[in-house]
Amino acid sequence: MPVPAPNLTPPFNTVRLSHVVLGATDLEASRRFYETTLGLQVTDADADAVYFRGMEERGHHCLVLRRATTATAQAVCFKVWSEADLDAAAAFFRGQGRPVAWVERPFQGRTLRSSDPHGLPVEFYHRMDRLPPIHQRYALYRGVKPLRIDHFNCFSPDVDASVAFWSAMGFRVTEYTEDAETRRLWAAWLHRKGGVHDMAFTNGLGPRLHHVAFWVPNPMNIIDLLDLMSTTGYVGNIERGPGRHGISNAFFLYIRDPDGHRVEIYCSDYQTVDPDHEPIHWDLTDPQRQTLWGAPAPRSWFEEGTLFEGLDPAPPTLAAQPIVAP
Amino acid sequence: MPVPAPNLTPPFNTVRLSHVVLGATDLEASRRFYETTLGLQVTDADADAVYFRGMEERGHHCLVLRRATTATAQAVCFKVWSEADLDAAAAFFRGQGRPVAWVERPFQGRTLRSSDPHGLPVEFYHRMDRLPPIHQRYALYRGVKPLRIDHFNCFSPDVDASVAFWSAMGFRVTEYTEDAETRRLWAAWLHRKGGVHDMAFTNGLGPRLHHVAFWVPNPMNIIDLLDLMSTTGYVGNIERGPGRHGISNAFFLYIRDPDGHRVEIYCSDYQTVDPDHEPIHWDLTDPQRQTLWGAPAPRSWFEEGTLFEGLDPAPPTLAAQPIVAP
Amino acid sequence: MPVPAPNLTPPFNTVRLSHVVLGATDLEASRRFYETTLGLQVTDADADAVYFRGMEERGHHCLVLRRATTATAQAVCFKVWSEADLDAAAAFFRGQGRPVAWVERPFQGRTLRSSDPHGLPVEFYHRMDRLPPIHQRYALYRGVKPLRIDHFNCFSPDVDASVAFWSAMGFRVTEYTEDAETRRLWAAWLHRKGGVHDMAFTNGLGPRLHHVAFWVPNPMNIIDLLDLMSTTGYVGNIERGPGRHGISNAFFLYIRDPDGHRVEIYCSDYQTVDPDHEPIHWDLTDPQRQTLWGAPAPRSWFEEGTLFEGLDPAPPTLAAQPIVAP
Amino acid sequence: MPVPAPNLTPPFNTVRLSHVVLGATDLEASRRFYETTLGLQVTDADADAVYFRGMEERGHHCLVLRRATTATAQAVCFKVWSEADLDAAAAFFRGQGRPVAWVERPFQGRTLRSSDPHGLPVEFYHRMDRLPPIHQRYALYRGVKPLRIDHFNCFSPDVDASVAFWSAMGFRVTEYTEDAETRRLWAAWLHRKGGVHDMAFTNGLGPRLHHVAFWVPNPMNIIDLLDLMSTTGYVGNIERGPGRHGISNAFFLYIRDPDGHRVEIYCSDYQTVDPDHEPIHWDLTDPQRQTLWGAPAPRSWFEEGTLFEGLDPAPPTLAAQPIVAP
Repeated sequence: MPVPAPNLTPPFNTVRLSHVVLGATDLEASRRFYETTLGLQVTDADADAVYFRGMEERGHHCLVLRRATTATAQAVCFKVWSEADLDAAAAFFRGQGRPVAWVERPFQGRTLRSSDPHGLPVEFYHRMDRLPPIHQRYALYRGVKPLRIDHFNCFSPDVDASVAFWSAMGFRVTEYTEDAETRRLWAAWLHRKGGVHDMAFTNGLGPRLHHVAFWVPNPMNIIDLLDLMSTTGYVGNIERGPGRHGISNAFFLYIRDPDGHRVEIYCSDYQTVDPDHEPIHWDLTDPQRQTLWGAPAPRSWFEEGTLFEGLDPAPPTLAAQPIVAP
Repeated sequence: MPVPAPNLTPPFNTVRLSHVVLGATDLEASRRFYETTLGLQVTDADADAVYFRGMEERGHHCLVLRRATTATAQAVCFKVWSEADLDAAAAFFRGQGRPVAWVERPFQGRTLRSSDPHGLPVEFYHRMDRLPPIHQRYALYRGVKPLRIDHFNCFSPDVDASVAFWSAMGFRVTEYTEDAETRRLWAAWLHRKGGVHDMAFTNGLGPRLHHVAFWVPNPMNIIDLLDLMSTTGYVGNIERGPGRHGISNAFFLYIRDPDGHRVEIYCSDYQTVDPDHEPIHWDLTDPQRQTLWGAPAPRSWFEEGTLFEGLDPAPPTLAAQPIVAP
Repeated sequence: MPVPAPNLTPPFNTVRLSHVVLGATDLEASRRFYETTLGLQVTDADADAVYFRGMEERGHHCLVLRRATTATAQAVCFKVWSEADLDAAAAFFRGQGRPVAWVERPFQGRTLRSSDPHGLPVEFYHRMDRLPPIHQRYALYRGVKPLRIDHFNCFSPDVDASVAFWSAMGFRVTEYTEDAETRRLWAAWLHRKGGVHDMAFTNGLGPRLHHVAFWVPNPMNIIDLLDLMSTTGYVGNIERGPGRHGISNAFFLYIRDPDGHRVEIYCSDYQTVDPDHEPIHWDLTDPQRQTLWGAPAPRSWFEEGTLFEGLDPAPPTLAAQPIVAP
Repeated sequence: MPVPAPNLTPPFNTVRLSHVVLGATDLEASRRFYETTLGLQVTDADADAVYFRGMEERGHHCLVLRRATTATAQAVCFKVWSEADLDAAAAFFRGQGRPVAWVERPFQGRTLRSSDPHGLPVEFYHRMDRLPPIHQRYALYRGVKPLRIDHFNCFSPDVDASVAFWSAMGFRVTEYTEDAETRRLWAAWLHRKGGVHDMAFTNGLGPRLHHVAFWVPNPMNIIDLLDLMSTTGYVGNIERGPGRHGISNAFFLYIRDPDGHRVEIYCSDYQTVDPDHEPIHWDLTDPQRQTLWGAPAPRSWFEEGTLFEGLDPAPPTLAAQPIVAP
């Protein structure tokens, strides 16, 4: 059994993933992409940063673009339940021998920065500025009508180790891919907020950010986005899909932003709040785990990802090869 | 401010609503309705009861029909996080002066039965038989493709009192309707699992069950159900909708089962996991709270509901009148 | 049998309905409604008129708004196959004793103006300015994403007489409602272009224009329009729906423009090109003919309509009452 | 200009494509595929043949499967307007030096069999048995909910010659792909019934049937079919898609039946009834003509097709290479 039992009494209470901070080498072009094509709402902007939220989010931001010379990611960020959870998180990371810092982040209260054992930078906060609801201001909806951030997916050089650490933090595995021969994990999906995942790990040169995903109402919105991107100069930014994942059962599309950061558009996964929710096992050789309908992912999807600032990724310890399009 | 602050350290951890037990005066006809027309999956049946689950549920049942001479409801039932939570729940109800019993329920572990201050019967359990996933067995999908139970809505003779009690249990208000004159609650929606509600209360002769709701993938499934019901002898069972609720922003349809038990088909509400998620206020005089598109609900929707076994409902303390179709 | 046999060798070849010219008492407000909310494309505008087309239309206009002091309609307009058909049409109308005039219309070639026996003004042309395709310029789509004009519906004081005349012109009945007692037609749907109708007649004070309909891709677009109208000040302009018609099997919504002109948003009817396509009979007492799902239409839907310029409507000869919401 | 002007006064009036007769080497397996998975309705069956119609069709059949030792096609079949058109068609084919035969076909009146200049077998009839409407018997809908046959697509060894012949018959070109260098046609789409096509030709070893297409309500039905096929043993029968065609703008999926006959599931093209409807030109080097979203078709899609009974196909005269997935 390659996945650890869920830790039902975790050291601190992570509510959900919150946001990601991405470098943009052409901030104006990237803003245009996320605002006009994807349809995220700009909540603040200055000369060097743009903040976005989804249509149903009341927290100030789920995505921050920062003007940068290289298109790296600063951190993947999470919201905890209470101020006490923030201090408990700090204690947990210190106890694991990880570096801990309290950092200043606009529009947020106290923010803890640390990293997982592979150096993947993570940030936790308790309080972020709250904004008035806009989910019923339908005149503002555009693009793919993104409702909220859904999850992160990161390359890990050792998925077993990543899952062990994140499970200790209270993340619960919902589905996983195993290499039958070695009994090693190829990939795993872990959640806090009651869907299939807040965070996933996939075997590869890492840590790198594989993608950030946004939740949309239904598959028709994804078709609308494809039509729009195909006829507004973004046809080359469509990487994979549309399709139904075997894992998660979600309807998906993968696109690349102007810097190559990968974005998943995602809907239709399922509820996982039960503490006794059983993880689903997939074999690495089953092509339907990737796409239920059988189409393999392109090679770029397995190889390309976003580096984290100042972090050299390590090659994976597991050499198994995924199924790719010829 | 008519809604209490959320209790972020509740006496016990309720994971989610779980199921409802309904009396069926013609068990075969009711089974046909839920199995063939709605599309719930039968997980067990004997001479006097039928158990159902939604397509993504792994717990044994979300609906139990029991052969009965009167079409009452036995209880609204909830799942708690751990066995310790079950004992803590028993202590809580005892502390509130409510009767507490441990009852035997098929396919479930220890089950606590109690009631809220108006006598609304509630049951809590920690462990239910788990079944293999069927959410990717698409040949089994039929009817409205119901994925899971979503919420209960009950008439309450005193919504302020109901909300106070359920808030103390850790349910958090997401939206509410207030009578501007009296500052009394007309209705409130409260959740545990991170959507708009697990439980709602609406002013009226109560306690009575107003409806149980099932989550479906998207509005097209609801249109499919309407077409099916309209042409298979169930056109008279369509009560209200389809439409978009102002409150919850969900796309909805209300139908009546062969005994008149009201079922809502529901999708597209929003995520509410943040502990600082602010409730949305609606005024009782705003017709768009009911249906964003303006159509009022029929009178039956305000007046009819399912009695609970052996419980005489009381008239509401709030006399304000809702907006109904002329 | 109340409907005449189709005339399979008509006196002239009408290709399809083409456009309607409507008076607008506040031209700017009406333009905003059709352009921004409905999403029709403006193809030309001057101080006193605005021309629109749907997203897949290449003819110059399907709707013309003209600044006016009263919100009347000028004519319902049709395209014929060839110039010879135009002359044949003139001969047909003359032969029926109807007035015939050749009128100047911007962006069109020779245009014939006449009227049916009740005085309903009709115009026919052969050539209209053609515009480049925009159906794949997805950045232009907005509102309900209207693709093309679909049909007209007019009140007639004598539906039997209207159907007889229009059948002689080559329009073919696809569905009809009969008053069982009198064997008189209550309403009929007639087509040229291969759908359920280009033109329909319904019993009532007439001739008046009941509505003009635009075809949209699918029901989700209609839901989007409802959400948009409900939250941008147009909730009072939603008159009936959404629903599925029994007659035509189409998914529909009826809205009113700022002058009260009724617009139907329509999709999902069926193909009727076969010359031996049999009309479908509905009884006037069947509520599902209006809405398959059972909801009756509001009284306004039976009583209100757009007058034609300079034409006094006559009361209907058939007194039968439709089914209306209480 | 590589496409001929439309013949607006054709020698006979073809209403629409009607049906195709396909050989099935395992009739039971093929019936199961079309009836249970696709959802066509069986209208008649005997030991050696099964007849199907779509949900809105009233003609007896749009597809005939005949037990066969080789999976060939018998003919592509069309409905003409009147008996006189049938005789005019016979005269036309004789005048073109093509063989003409009157054949017996079950459930049809007089049937003319001939072939185009490449030998592609065609059949025309005027009268087919008519069946009662079932489009509102929603309990019968299953699979992809196929409404009607939409078009044929055939490989032609000389698309210019095919288009010249079929244009003379009154088929009108709506879109075409041209090899810029040679000014030769690579492919063309021609219609009679007012959509993008009843018949298309694509360059290749031919005549062979490339595919037959069925119209479905909307893209969600195609997603449902993919989910169903993927989980009922048909994942290997999914060949290409889902996607949006550049040409036709339709949403599509290509699947293969148990004998490898290719079926397209198709929706969302546009109306083309105007006699002055201008054809749209595509360049052979534009990958978006195949799939607007950029994904190339697999090699099998360009190479594989169904042979016609007793007909040896010829290699194409145009050597240009299409764009294929690597």
